[in-house]
Amino acid sequence: MYIEKVNSPDDIRGFRMEQLKDLASEIREGLMNRLSKKGGHFGPNFGFVEATIALHYVFHSPVDKMVFDVSHQSYTHKMLTGRKDAYLYDDHFEDVSGYTNPEESEHDLFNVGHTSTSVSLACGLAKARDLRGGKENIIAVIGDGSLSGGEALEGINFASELESNFIILVNDNDMSIAQNHGGLYKNLKELRESNGTCECNLFKAMGLDYRYVADGNKIEALIEAFEHVKDIDHPVVVHVNTVKGKGYKPAETEKENWHWCMPFDAQTGKSKVVTSGEDYESKTCEYLLKKMKADEKVVTVVAAVPTCIGFTEDKRKEAGKQFVDVGIAEEHAVAMVSGIAKNGGKPVFATHSSFFQRTYDQISQDLCVNNSPATLLVNTASVYGMNDVTHLGIYDIPMMSNIPNLVYLAPTNCEEYFAMLDWSIEQNQYPVAVRIPCNGVIHTDKPVDTDYSNLNKYQMTQQGTEIAVIALGDFYQIGEKLTELIFEKTGTTATLINPRFITGMDEEMLERLKENHSKVITLEDGILNGGFGEKITRFYSSSDMKVYNYGLKKAFIDRYSVEDVLEQNHLKPELILKDI
Amino acid sequence: MYIEKVNSPDDIRGFRMEQLKDLASEIREGLMNRLSKKGGHFGPNFGFVEATIALHYVFHSPVDKMVFDVSHQSYTHKMLTGRKDAYLYDDHFEDVSGYTNPEESEHDLFNVGHTSTSVSLACGLAKARDLRGGKENIIAVIGDGSLSGGEALEGINFASELESNFIILVNDNDMSIAQNHGGLYKNLKELRESNGTCECNLFKAMGLDYRYVADGNKIEALIEAFEHVKDIDHPVVVHVNTVKGKGYKPAETEKENWHWCMPFDAQTGKSKVVTSGEDYESKTCEYLLKKMKADEKVVTVVAAVPTCIGFTEDKRKEAGKQFVDVGIAEEHAVAMVSGIAKNGGKPVFATHSSFFQRTYDQISQDLCVNNSPATLLVNTASVYGMNDVTHLGIYDIPMMSNIPNLVYLAPTNCEEYFAMLDWSIEQNQYPVAVRIPCNGVIHTDKPVDTDYSNLNKYQMTQQGTEIAVIALGDFYQIGEKLTELIFEKTGTTATLINPRFITGMDEEMLERLKENHSKVITLEDGILNGGFGEKITRFYSSSDMKVYNYGLKKAFIDRYSVEDVLEQNHLKPELILKDI
Repeated sequence: MYIEKVNSPDDIRGFRMEQLKDLASEIREGLMNRLSKKGGHFGPNFGFVEATIALHYVFHSPVDKMVFDVSHQSYTHKMLTGRKDAYLYDDHFEDVSGYTNPEESEHDLFNVGHTSTSVSLACGLAKARDLRGGKENIIAVIGDGSLSGGEALEGINFASELESNFIILVNDNDMSIAQNHGGLYKNLKELRESNGTCECNLFKAMGLDYRYVADGNKIEALIEAFEHVKDIDHPVVVHVNTVKGKGYKPAETEKENWHWCMPFDAQTGKSKVVTSGEDYESKTCEYLLKKMKADEKVVTVVAAVPTCIGFTEDKRKEAGKQFVDVGIAEEHAVAMVSGIAKNGGKPVFATHSSFFQRTYDQISQDLCVNNSPATLLVNTASVYGMNDVTHLGIYDIPMMSNIPNLVYLAPTNCEEYFAMLDWSIEQNQYPVAVRIPCNGVIHTDKPVDTDYSNLNKYQMTQQGTEIAVIALGDFYQIGEKLTELIFEKTGTTATLINPRFITGMDEEMLERLKENHSKVITLEDGILNGGFGEKITRFYSSSDMKVYNYGLKKAFIDRYSVEDVLEQNHLKPELILKDI
Repeated sequence: MYIEKVNSPDDIRGFRMEQLKDLASEIREGLMNRLSKKGGHFGPNFGFVEATIALHYVFHSPVDKMVFDVSHQSYTHKMLTGRKDAYLYDDHFEDVSGYTNPEESEHDLFNVGHTSTSVSLACGLAKARDLRGGKENIIAVIGDGSLSGGEALEGINFASELESNFIILVNDNDMSIAQNHGGLYKNLKELRESNGTCECNLFKAMGLDYRYVADGNKIEALIEAFEHVKDIDHPVVVHVNTVKGKGYKPAETEKENWHWCMPFDAQTGKSKVVTSGEDYESKTCEYLLKKMKADEKVVTVVAAVPTCIGFTEDKRKEAGKQFVDVGIAEEHAVAMVSGIAKNGGKPVFATHSSFFQRTYDQISQDLCVNNSPATLLVNTASVYGMNDVTHLGIYDIPMMSNIPNLVYLAPTNCEEYFAMLDWSIEQNQYPVAVRIPCNGVIHTDKPVDTDYSNLNKYQMTQQGTEIAVIALGDFYQIGEKLTELIFEKTGTTATLINPRFITGMDEEMLERLKENHSKVITLEDGILNGGFGEKITRFYSSSDMKVYNYGLKKAFIDRYSVEDVLEQNHLKPELILKDI
């Protein structure tokens, strides 16, 4: 095998064309080995094998610098830069993350997991190079799906100002995570169909030189194109047409399903993960479909991750015009739902907690300053959510709950979640965000409130004395266990409170607690800094009440075990009891 | 006068062309009256008089709906929609804000003060219209300067998916606040020079129909174009070439200086505002220029507001390649400075507190996850800053200080500010943000620390007992006065602490305070929720220390008097003393 001899990109530069092609096959075998057993980004990586080989054949990393947008197509790069073992050998799977990572290799410049950032990051590398008179090539790799993101478009617009070496490699596989959305994709199609020759050209319209490679899975063509632009003295776009999922039939055919995969049987393509029971994705989808059918003013909006609320292709078709995927464009999505709400619609925008970060200003200015009654559904907003450092869902409480006018709700079970969502869609007074539970579908047989318009009213679910536990959202169940343990160990019936509202305080209830409680414990599923518990603490700060805030430490954490993190932060009933 | 009879757009529809032209002159007189006495956005409004008249002549607001990007060109719209008195008569100046405002008129759909939002907001209006089968025209007005912003580009890309009536009116005056930056402006130039006929066309490349109006200050041409697109059944861009500052020679000549104005003498164009003494804009510029001359790796980056740190045109020329204005593109700016820092440069990015909101995810992901040692300079981050609801600088502490890895510094005087800035530029361990003081240039004759690498060490500036006052940044001087008052009234020497670090706690010092203090008072120039004081409160929450947090209430406030806000929040030494 050639791949076994490749420990750095230098090792492939002596290869003949046939050897490079064999290497491509071996790399796909390595990818298949890891992805079928561990899962990961499938389609984009399978499509970008040849382009990565050609990149490392022509350019000299790490002197020449490559930035891979969102890292979805960086696996071959990892294999060629000393990390092949993590793909070839099962016991080395944990050597690497799913994203570029400077801690792994000097060939990785940045830790990247959000889309649309590569051009701007690479512009910075180029600017610093120019200031010190350097000569290395700077290459930003970006997929067509990422082009619709504001940061990418800002970067592409700016790039032409560099007036020095700068190469933007557009990996066009005619797909985002799901299908692409927006007018620029018509232009990419026109460019592909005219072999890059049509006069109207988005990249030229943004001031950039341009070159097209029709067969982006043909190493010869790629090497020729890259050699042509190597050491170029101005910014250029190399537009490469690749096949998403190339080399694995199921992935070439079912592109959306194979963007990302769980472990699967390589022979059949069937997933090995047996999902059983309920999940919030399909329950949310079911609810929204029903809602939309009953009311034509309800509209569901997503930004390139439709399945985060269960909207697979068939469900999207079912929803018709009442379902809008804006593509990777979270800023646009939030401003648009504000506009929909202002003109009488009932919009719901859903994405992951981590991706709401991409639209802070729109939440503040377009939505909350204007008090538009739109609903934001915040997914994987939890320590139980995604655990890659670039996708953490533990920061949205400080980020969103301190924005004025927003009503941010944290349900504690399935029935409460849908009651909150339903109330939010039907009310017309407030911008509302709802955290989708992330600790499994937990049901209650107790009645849940259907009206949340009397803001900031907490719910006392167990009246006790001495100790009050205020347990927010997904951590409500920890609160339940804690009060049980307190009773068991001390005989004291502690008070248990479901606060429901992240964005406000039930001052009346908190005041009343002073009468027969000396300790208040808060629990929240997110970092403590700037979060929910600190506000409770401030309420009591000049009183005699002792307050204990439990949540996560402010830090970036990567590929963690939930149990470890809960343990480290004392988020276990027995540890809390010991503390107090 | 015609304008005196115009109480709604209906009133101009019977006007003959000559009357419309006279109306335009009268409107400019009204604008001149207000702007010369009160200040405001000059150039964009003078350039957009005819286009606004034509808009209201052709379309039927408020049934047809217009969204004015950033509101910089909305004054004529206000005059034609029942608010002329606020321009014609001095005693009505306070009737209106400088931005569109639904509280003023049903013709204003949104409160808008940040750029690049109109297309997305209007897309939402259009989507809601389509869902209910409405037929009204939806018009998004956007200036060429705003086109470089990510939200605008996301919106324009998405617009073509609407497949229904949607009109984007691009007001191209060939200027941003300062000059435009980015490749798309080459295309706008080509379009202007080819009378809109060149094949390569940014808007067509984004899937949109297109129409050009060469003389955007000629009412006939505008009416013709608008009548052509009225009730159109698909999205279209009407690209209108206007003259910024049209009708006032100084503004037509000195476009950047006349984008926005303070009160001035209408005869001479000379500002009536006499500035005396020092200011942080020019001091920061002076410092950075010196720094850049001494070290070619230092680079100053701004996003369309170069004068927020004093970089007027001559200073920008002086800085040469070491000064980069990215245009309205804050996301790109922050990602780029991360890239610059990673490749050995020493970047400083400055903008207003309110505009940092536009780049939350880049601060988190591109900068802080990657721990890039870049410097962010946060301007007008204070209750003493801008007081329009869309430009408030009182939210950056909760927004930024809860992002892991960031070191956020709050200087208490001029010498400390420059020491912090200098340390930040020279260190290579942390992403650092520094709040530019906003309470006047206050000097100290005491030595200030030059090294802040020992993170989170607070400075005790007065050692006392019983009461400790922790006074952050701009509110340090309130802290000084408070300790003086405490001594005067009670004879107690209170402890005074300059915490310096917003992002961390000096646990050792806080612990020590327990020995001989019973009360801690925190002061911060921003909202309390998610802010600095709550963290101090959390530190003491299970101890006997009583803590009192002073700062601002979480709310959107508009055109406030600083004194009133300080009073309402008890941010006065005598009120605090009374409280405790």
